[in-house]
Formats: sequence, C-alpha cells, structure tokens
Amino acid sequence: MKPVRVGICGLGTVGSGTFNVLNRNAEAIAARTGRIITIGQVGARRDNPACDTSTTEVSRDIFEVARNPDIDIVVELIGGYDTAKDLILTAIEHGKHVVTANKALIAEHGNEIFQAAREKNVTVTYEAAVAGGIPIIKCLREGLAGNSINWLAGIINGTGNFILTEMGDKNRSFGDVLKEAQELGYAEADPTFDVEGIDACHKLTIMASIAFGIPLQFNKAYTEGISKVTPADIRYAEELGYRIKHLGIARHNGAGVELRVHPTLIPASQPLANINGVLNSVVVNADAVGEAMLVGPGAGAEPTASSVVADIMDIARTMEAPQTNPKPLGFDSDRLQDTPVLPIADTHSACYLRIHADDHPGVMHAITSILGKQGINIEAMTQKAVRESDGYADIVILTQKVQESLMDQALAKIEQLDDVQAPVTRIRVEAMA
Amino acid sequence: MKPVRVGICGLGTVGSGTFNVLNRNAEAIAARTGRIITIGQVGARRDNPACDTSTTEVSRDIFEVARNPDIDIVVELIGGYDTAKDLILTAIEHGKHVVTANKALIAEHGNEIFQAAREKNVTVTYEAAVAGGIPIIKCLREGLAGNSINWLAGIINGTGNFILTEMGDKNRSFGDVLKEAQELGYAEADPTFDVEGIDACHKLTIMASIAFGIPLQFNKAYTEGISKVTPADIRYAEELGYRIKHLGIARHNGAGVELRVHPTLIPASQPLANINGVLNSVVVNADAVGEAMLVGPGAGAEPTASSVVADIMDIARTMEAPQTNPKPLGFDSDRLQDTPVLPIADTHSACYLRIHADDHPGVMHAITSILGKQGINIEAMTQKAVRESDGYADIVILTQKVQESLMDQALAKIEQLDDVQAPVTRIRVEAMA
Repeated sequence: MKPVRVGICGLGTVGSGTFNVLNRNAEAIAARTGRIITIGQVGARRDNPACDTSTTEVSRDIFEVARNPDIDIVVELIGGYDTAKDLILTAIEHGKHVVTANKALIAEHGNEIFQAAREKNVTVTYEAAVAGGIPIIKCLREGLAGNSINWLAGIINGTGNFILTEMGDKNRSFGDVLKEAQELGYAEADPTFDVEGIDACHKLTIMASIAFGIPLQFNKAYTEGISKVTPADIRYAEELGYRIKHLGIARHNGAGVELRVHPTLIPASQPLANINGVLNSVVVNADAVGEAMLVGPGAGAEPTASSVVADIMDIARTMEAPQTNPKPLGFDSDRLQDTPVLPIADTHSACYLRIHADDHPGVMHAITSILGKQGINIEAMTQKAVRESDGYADIVILTQKVQESLMDQALAKIEQLDDVQAPVTRIRVEAMA
Repeated sequence: MKPVRVGICGLGTVGSGTFNVLNRNAEAIAARTGRIITIGQVGARRDNPACDTSTTEVSRDIFEVARNPDIDIVVELIGGYDTAKDLILTAIEHGKHVVTANKALIAEHGNEIFQAAREKNVTVTYEAAVAGGIPIIKCLREGLAGNSINWLAGIINGTGNFILTEMGDKNRSFGDVLKEAQELGYAEADPTFDVEGIDACHKLTIMASIAFGIPLQFNKAYTEGISKVTPADIRYAEELGYRIKHLGIARHNGAGVELRVHPTLIPASQPLANINGVLNSVVVNADAVGEAMLVGPGAGAEPTASSVVADIMDIARTMEAPQTNPKPLGFDSDRLQDTPVLPIADTHSACYLRIHADDHPGVMHAITSILGKQGINIEAMTQKAVRESDGYADIVILTQKVQESLMDQALAKIEQLDDVQAPVTRIRVEAMA
C-alpha cells in the first residue's frame, strides 16, 4: 500500500513534538500500523529549530496543506479559534481526515466540525485535546464503552495543579507561585485560561459528552478559578483530612448532568488527592468497572505528540473504511441524549466555609442560626486563632450536602453580618465515593 | 444493519458479568456501536442464578456455540488451557471473531491462536486478560502506539497485593493473611497461580509483547512469588523509605528484554507504592509520553466484563472490515522483533538483603568482605536487634545495582558462613526512574 501522507499545520511546541516522534519512531509506527506514515508537508509561518525540516516540504500557508491533494491526514496544531476552524473545515471539505489537539475549538465548535466530517465520511480525532499524553478519550470512548458512567473527575490543568501543590507544600501565596510558574514556562503571560478554569472546562466539556452521550455544551458549564484559594485554606483543609484540588467534575445525577470546574476539597486518602505538580489525572466511576484512574503528563511537546501520533495511526489503519471508527463523541450523533446540563444553582455539594469575623461572642451564634434557618447542617466547625493584624479570627465550617442556591442565600446573609468581613470563602467538598 | 450476535461460552463470574452488562446497557451500547448487539446463545454446563437466561438460547455444549452459523462473535470465558483452546480454534475455523479473558491461554498459546485468526481474517481480542477492568491492552496497543517503550511495571495480581498490603498494615504473616484471603474469596483454594507470580507473569508476558513487538515468550520469563516475604522485611523496607510490591517488570535495556515477576522494593514516594489492596496498576515509561499510569480493579465479575464488552463493541463496529483492527500484539506478526528475552542471571538490580546471623563481631566483616570481592557496593547497612528466641540478629543491607549472577555467587558464599542462617532473603530494588 502507498504511504499515508500527513500534513502538519503549526510547528510550535506540539507540532515540533509530533514532527520528531513521527520521524524518530517511523519504523515501529509502520510495523504497528501496517502502513508507512510520512510527513508529506508542513505548514508553518516560521521554522522551529527543534525540527530538522531540511528534507520536508514546508509551506508558509497552512491552507495549502489543507488543500494539498497528496495529503491524507491534516494535523491542526496552530491553536485558537477562527483560523483553526477554517483550516479544519477546509481540510474536511477536501476529503481529508483531521487530527487536532485544540481543546477550545472542539469544546466550543466540535458539534459543527463533527457534522461536517460526517457528511464527508472522514474521521476527526482529538485525543491530545484532553490531558495531553493520557489516552483518556480512547478510554472513555472505547475502553470503557460498555459502561454506564456515573461520574468522572479530573485534575486536567497542570498549571493550576502545580500552583496549588506549591502553595500547600511551601505555604506560598497564589500570586507568588503564579509568578514562578510563569518564569518556569508552566503558565502563560496571561494565565486566565489556566487559573480561571476555562482550559479545564474545555476538557471537561469534551469528556462529559463522551461519557454521557450528550452534545458539547461548553457554555452551560460552571467554571470557577483558584485565585481566591489561600495557603490558610489549604492548611485548614489538611487539618480536616482534605486536600484542595482544582477539579473538573461531570456527574449524571438522574435529573441531569452536572458540569463544573472549581477548587474542591477531597479526602486526603483519595488517589486524586496525591496527584501533584504538573501531572494530570482523571478518575472515572462507572457501573461495570467501578472506578478506574489514569495519570500522566497533561502537556509538553512529546507527551502531547504521543496522543497526536496515536490518532494518526488509528486513522492510517482505518483509512480504507473510516466508517469503522468510533463516532467522534462515542455516540452516533443521531443518538445523542438531550439530558439537560444542570445550572450550578440546582446542584448539591457539601461546603467548606472560611469566615473572617470579629472575635465576638455573638458571631458564632449568628452564623449558625443563619445556616440552621436555611436547613444547612454543620459537619464540623472550628475557630482559628485571632490574627493580630486585624483582631479578626477565621471560622472554618464544613457543611453537609446542600443545594447550591440555599447556600448562596445563606452566604449573602452571613456576609451582611456586621462582624463578618465579606466575602466568605466557599469551597465545595467532594467525598468522591 | 442486522444485529451482531454474541455467543457467550462459560457462565461463571466473568460470563455472568458479561451477560448482565450486555443486557443492562444494551441501548447505550447500540448507540455507541451503531449496531444492536444481542446475546444469540449461551454455552454453559449449568445455569448461574446471577443471570436471567429465560429468554436466551442456552446450550450445554459450548462447541455448539462455536459452530453456530448465527453467531458472529464467540466469547470464551471458560478459562483453562485445552478445552478453551479447542473452543477458540473451532470458532476461528468457523469464521467467528473471538473475545477471551484467558490470560494463561493467550500468554502460552497466543502465537498459535493469532496465526489461525490471521489466516481466517477474523479478530481475536483479550483486553480482559490483563488487569481486569483497566484498558491497558488498548492503551499499549493504540493509545501509546507512537511511543518507543522503555519499560513497564505493574501490580497485576490483586490477591498478592492484598496479601502484601495486609501484612504491612497489620504486621501479619504471609500464611495468616493468605488464609483470610481464601476465606474472602480473593484467593483460590490452591493459591499457587497468584502467590507464586504465575498469573502475573502471564499478564506481563502479554504486555511485554505489545510493548516491545516481540512474540509471546512466557517460558523465558523469570517468576518468583511472595511467600518468603515477612512482616519484618516490610518493616525494614519502610524504615529505608521503600514499600514491597509484587511487580511484573518488562524492560528493554538495549541488549534485550528483561521479563520478571518478583517482590520488589520501590521508593515509598512512587505512585505504584501507594496502590493497595486488590487494586491493579500499570506504569508505562516511554520516549514520548514520559510516564503514564493506569489504576483500577484487576478482577471481579463486572470490572472484567467491562473489558470483555469493550472488545465485543470494537469487533461489532469493525465487523465489515476486520483488517482495520490493530494486530493482536500491536505489531504485524511479520514484523515482530527477535529481541532476546534475557535470562535473569544477565539482568542488573540493586538488592535488599536480610541476613539472619549470629551476633558475633566477625560476621559483619565476613559478609562485607564477600560482597566487596564480588564488586558489590553497599548503599546502606544496619543491624537490627537480636531476637531473643535464637540469639541471632537481622542484618539488613541495600546494595547498589549488580549483575544477578554476581549476587547469586555472593549469596552462596554468605550462606556458607558458620554464623549465618541460610537462606538469605534477597529482594530486588527498583528506583523506577
């Protein structure tokens, strides 16, 4: 059979990793795929010194790759929305299979892209879009496909996990560690996507669609970042037997799907609690398997390339019969469910509250009375030493599970107390069981 | 398209789990596969009260299922060697695809079975044969297929891991915990397969073939059980910063492939060190991804069924073009490597030694002198309190990496010392880095 010709668009971190892995492991890749896979063309605005492209055809116009009749698989690694989407749709229009690592694009425009691919009977894969080198898409879509999934939870942003790990290990502030993460290259100059949970939410949106057979609905997900977490919260949580992780959680609760990214207290004994630094990890809880966990690098040139190349190999193997591939979201698009994504106000969580309050005999009573009137049960409550700087103390409360909207109302009332300094810190708690 | 008809042979633990998962999740399975999957026939010597087979055709002759012209996929869940092999070969001969959970059969007769399947252009899959519900076969064969794998290490026998965990947590002897494991149903009446590492070695053999593209070579693997590990060893290891796990290790060291199952000291900080109880876990170290880890249940009716059903779904999806499936061992059988499996004597490991010796001034000198003459460097050495019962003390030594055959010679000499009680306990140490 003739070689499969890959066109790589974008020669940044992941593009260069993909270029190098495909070349370095070419022989074993051919032995595994049954087809020789060659890089037919690279589209990149500039060269990357990490890649020797001297014997490769390079175009400065990525759209030339998408239209190149000699290219079988277009690999989109330029990132971003508009141009990337145009590129992918152009490639599909020209009958090419597509591999992408673009989580933002898939989460926000995947439905449209998959529809276009369906009409042209080509395959679009995106393993590298979620959790870098961890083959979680394949696991959800194929390896665990016989299961009815109850929930999944993941540490799916290495930057945020690095920051929380450092804050906890070294008692450092969020801002301080963020600055270091930027210097180390773990965080972008504009860290919003990572620390506000948008990146994690893109990945969660994709995983939830596969897990529950629902269309991609990024806009309905709840997202909360880690910037308000303090070293004191991490310490208090530790004293209570918990760690704070920035989790993406998707749960089918019967009525609908919860889709939320937020800082979360999880029991220190939970495996996810011990995933530190820039690692990613996803736990899947499902009816047949029970619980399975995957751990690995969530970013980086070659870890991400590992997933891109796996996708290329899957496509190369099935190129003569693309209809044998799994559907992009696991479920056939005609068979996706209309299970609603629940507004955060309708979800239920236990909560950790840190209330900074004047050390005054009546304040505890006032707070517990507000919680009691909202029907919120207290699991644990401790008052921490008064801070000399302001004469205020931290009151730390663990509540039992409560509907989010009731907690919102209680917090609004607590924040109106004269003795309480607003805002109150509220971090959701997950038993993960 | 007409439904895909599955024939389940064997209605024991895994068979009943498969029967129930296929029925319970039938609707979602059809939506994911694009084909309705029905149980066309069950072959079992007796009914299983866990399954309602009242509307299913049941035969007391499993070979009837293998020859049934209405069956597309034969699922072999009877276990064992001869009959299972005959059944699978009969099914292949009749043009049926095959799914099996039989690790012993695949590890020892897989080459022959895969050759037969190749000649008939049918698919044979066996995800459930390794690490139960963890989709490790798919991860190695597809998800990490672009990598050149350096090594993999796994806790791949839940019984052994349960026993070691209990011994360590509760300072109990091997025999004592084994008895409890038998009562709990975690261990068989004859526990040899589990505690002597044969079961783990079957799984390791299969993973190593996929990882390194070599034929299955169970007979060349080294296997050592956990029965000689004592609570004292676990405690001493802990003091040195290690845990003892029964690992299957496959490593490509340039000259060849190491393939070995034995108790192993690993640093307590390693993720594998914290996998406890009946859980299974596999760590893969590879050139592109770096390190990835999977954790999950290694046995049980529905966890194992999760993998069996995933295999059935893969086959159902590709039934019109089975040649698009990955090769059974990842690599095309024409392209398997003749990389030798190294004899254990040629491998190199650091070692933990526990020497039970008379508390006599010359004995330390005699031991270190023997090690020194063999060129074995000592990393750490401590003498533990004398046991009142026999007046002997435990001398615990950690050595640097040394060729196995040199260590064998040193141990033979140490065991000949008058003051030393033979045998010396030797447990290999892996830094896993």
